[in-house]
Amino acid sequence: MTISVIKIGGNVIDYPEKLAEFLVQLAHFPGPKILVHGGGIMASKFGESLGVMPKMIDGRRITDADTLDIVTMVYAGLINKDIVAKLQAIGINALGLSGADGNLIRSKKRGVGKIDYGYVGDIQEVNTALLSLLLENDMIPVISAITHDQQGQLLNTNADGIASHIATSLAKKHKVNLYFCFNKPGVLLEEHDDFSIVPLINEDIYEELKQESVIHSGMIPKLDNAFAALQMGVNHVWIGKAENLSLAAKGKLSGTIIENHRYDLY
Amino acid sequence: MTISVIKIGGNVIDYPEKLAEFLVQLAHFPGPKILVHGGGIMASKFGESLGVMPKMIDGRRITDADTLDIVTMVYAGLINKDIVAKLQAIGINALGLSGADGNLIRSKKRGVGKIDYGYVGDIQEVNTALLSLLLENDMIPVISAITHDQQGQLLNTNADGIASHIATSLAKKHKVNLYFCFNKPGVLLEEHDDFSIVPLINEDIYEELKQESVIHSGMIPKLDNAFAALQMGVNHVWIGKAENLSLAAKGKLSGTIIENHRYDLY
Repeated sequence: MTISVIKIGGNVIDYPEKLAEFLVQLAHFPGPKILVHGGGIMASKFGESLGVMPKMIDGRRITDADTLDIVTMVYAGLINKDIVAKLQAIGINALGLSGADGNLIRSKKRGVGKIDYGYVGDIQEVNTALLSLLLENDMIPVISAITHDQQGQLLNTNADGIASHIATSLAKKHKVNLYFCFNKPGVLLEEHDDFSIVPLINEDIYEELKQESVIHSGMIPKLDNAFAALQMGVNHVWIGKAENLSLAAKGKLSGTIIENHRYDLY
Repeated sequence: MTISVIKIGGNVIDYPEKLAEFLVQLAHFPGPKILVHGGGIMASKFGESLGVMPKMIDGRRITDADTLDIVTMVYAGLINKDIVAKLQAIGINALGLSGADGNLIRSKKRGVGKIDYGYVGDIQEVNTALLSLLLENDMIPVISAITHDQQGQLLNTNADGIASHIATSLAKKHKVNLYFCFNKPGVLLEEHDDFSIVPLINEDIYEELKQESVIHSGMIPKLDNAFAALQMGVNHVWIGKAENLSLAAKGKLSGTIIENHRYDLY
């Protein structure tokens, strides 16, 4: 049994038609699966309507108390319940969770260094027993990017990090694949050529691509995270567009697969 | 094993200190339990901040699309996750749910008669298997007053009704007590005398009190609902103040108990 952990972001969530199409693909995705979602621009939009402007320091977003309330409402309330209701409508028994629910994800408020990020959580522990219980009972956990510190404080938490931590925690006992849906069809050889997808990256290829400066800036932390997940037992990591997820499920080339063993693809 | 279904409203939720005190009482409440909450004035406050004014027709609140988004955010997001995180902090493994999660509560959009209530749900079915699964795994379900129609539509739903339906659905297989926390210490003989609590109401007493006009207006639907729950197998219904819940748990007089069998109280 392979568990698939699938992360979507604003580029899917912010567009109702794209989201609906994605959820149908998810419904047909084989095997047990877990969906992790962020919040996209919806949280910023609601915040601004309430007079809470995004706060940035050195280009990093700060989660003050008002912003935390807004992301809790938008991520764990509006978006999470909308996704769950839409999955229920197509016959998928989804159950929405934040990291506080069932103590799913315990995190620690990020320490104040040069920047005080506010109510932002760094993940400490994932309660895999709860995920196993839900999966064994044919439910699909739909997880919003809010965690808690087990001392009563909710914390805004990076959705990519949640997906990685869930995948690596489950990988101790299960075969796990991790899927990151983003706004590009994969890692590209030419930034503006969507057809220049690198289908497979292993550590050798990664080093080569970095040396040739094909991979740079934004992609490097994403790929570093992917390799870290592999190190911790995840079977493979896929990066691509949400609309290509069903191709990925069929083992067709449809994005970039990050894997350590070249000839052990499917 | 007696399952307790406990409903709280705005008079607890709107005051952080009262809520904290209540949650400690809940933690010490014996046996498996389920918490149902509404939203209080917080939803109206956020709605107004967003420029969405409460819409009333003939004194009844209307849930238009914007209002539905707001109650989903506030009930299923902000309030639900705040309660769950606070319960986790005092060692209670709470798990927050809307009626869409795990298909917990399927409802039907209320038909348009003289008044179009908008996105308001009348409850059709409760998934007791999910509640049993969580209770058997020592989790406390915390349920917000949002349901779904299994066709992708979320619906604003009366929290008292959710508590009643959950209690009567579970009563088919379990002994269930239902607790309604509200802003009075119980059914009062004298409206403004908080010490004039009627400790016990059975059908005979109810008829008598109605004839004497001791019980009128707002209390009648509450008590009719309570008797309907008893008819459907609920063991007893308690009505009182949240701060007296721990006395009720100990079998001490602390509110009004509605029961059909006078000499079978505890």
